[in-house]
Amino acid sequence: MKNYKLVIQYEGTRYKGWQRQDTTDNTIQGKFEQIFSKMENRKVEIAGSGRTDAGVHALGQVANVHLETTMSPKEIMDYVNRYLPEDIAVISVTEVSERFHSRLNARKKTYLYRVLNTDVPNVFHRRYVHVVPEKLDIQAMRKGADYLKGSHDFKAFCTKKKMKKSTVRHIDSIDIKMVGEEIQFLYVGNGFLYHMVRIMTGTLLEIGLGKRKPEEILEILASCKRENAGELVPGCGLTLVSVEYDERE
Amino acid sequence: MKNYKLVIQYEGTRYKGWQRQDTTDNTIQGKFEQIFSKMENRKVEIAGSGRTDAGVHALGQVANVHLETTMSPKEIMDYVNRYLPEDIAVISVTEVSERFHSRLNARKKTYLYRVLNTDVPNVFHRRYVHVVPEKLDIQAMRKGADYLKGSHDFKAFCTKKKMKKSTVRHIDSIDIKMVGEEIQFLYVGNGFLYHMVRIMTGTLLEIGLGKRKPEEILEILASCKRENAGELVPGCGLTLVSVEYDERE
Repeated sequence: MKNYKLVIQYEGTRYKGWQRQDTTDNTIQGKFEQIFSKMENRKVEIAGSGRTDAGVHALGQVANVHLETTMSPKEIMDYVNRYLPEDIAVISVTEVSERFHSRLNARKKTYLYRVLNTDVPNVFHRRYVHVVPEKLDIQAMRKGADYLKGSHDFKAFCTKKKMKKSTVRHIDSIDIKMVGEEIQFLYVGNGFLYHMVRIMTGTLLEIGLGKRKPEEILEILASCKRENAGELVPGCGLTLVSVEYDERE
Repeated sequence: MKNYKLVIQYEGTRYKGWQRQDTTDNTIQGKFEQIFSKMENRKVEIAGSGRTDAGVHALGQVANVHLETTMSPKEIMDYVNRYLPEDIAVISVTEVSERFHSRLNARKKTYLYRVLNTDVPNVFHRRYVHVVPEKLDIQAMRKGADYLKGSHDFKAFCTKKKMKKSTVRHIDSIDIKMVGEEIQFLYVGNGFLYHMVRIMTGTLLEIGLGKRKPEEILEILASCKRENAGELVPGCGLTLVSVEYDERE
């Protein structure tokens, strides 16, 4: 058995997210496991670097899978792409060491949240943006974002699932830039909690709308209470851009 | 009655093209006429700068329409966008002189044909590209494109519809460039015949694949015979980028 690292793109619109569910096969992980299980004629499981929620897109999701096949990495890629629906694609397959695990070895993740800041609809980007037509104060949002950078307990910025694990994470950078009529929020960090990017973006948007002050971020972080943070913005605006690993992988 | 110029975007995937048909309302023109007719409570017709075929997209289609409404241009735009499906949008409405006609006054049109030149599927651009995974000789295609520039009888490069009108057109420029894994063909000219951009692109691709020599373009033009030119490539790769008018409009 060899271990393969896959880089995967998907438009998440039609799916219930990455993670396989028992009741539906409408998940990205489920699609891959169906194809690999048929290919190997046994039950194959694939591990993703992390879940993405319903509607969330990926430019560079990473997964790994152990396979018995004698096909080359390029042949595996072509085989899988032949059976995947057209809104999911594998853009690279490489053989990696036996110990490589896409989630446990992930060192850094980059997420992009796209806000369309106009009331003129955008036909071509509509599936990838959240529309906020009101005027937004970019400087205030940047100031708010500065308070989120660094290592903090982000409990207030996540929807609770399992509460046992640590909710401390480190954010390297949050870049907020205007690209045409769009405002793009680019988050780089060592990991993100459930809904964390979408709740941070929702909170920053409330700052941009003048409903909150940038300094409130400090109080929200300190409170560790979800109800003090802003709204969860829709999944359609979010894209997992890339996952980085130590160089030796 | 006032005359309004509309700039329109659409993803053509779901439509049978711009032009209204009797048997279906699945056309862009048809969608607009339904909305305006309801708005004005009378039969309203809208004129486009030209037809786009089934599956063809537009970043800047131009149309004009005479309306009795007292709404402002911005109010007209918002009204129409509220009723349009999400793959069609009006991005600008301006009042123009009574005599302005989007087709008759058009001076220049720009079309983009996008070829995805890899066997790795592209999830995000799949609706806007034609996939040609084979190696293509860009220099040879550029040489072929040079023979198409200028004024010629393009009869060999169109599917015949009405044969009475002149088939002479002037092409200002054809730029062929690599953008990542894509080859983009950008055509600027004073007008294009039915299927002309798609047949020119099909012929250039056959040159790029080594099936034809660039010089053959001269013979094809001179023959005025459709069967001598290359294949009609799919509509999904084509986008009407912009339509230009004399400045006074």
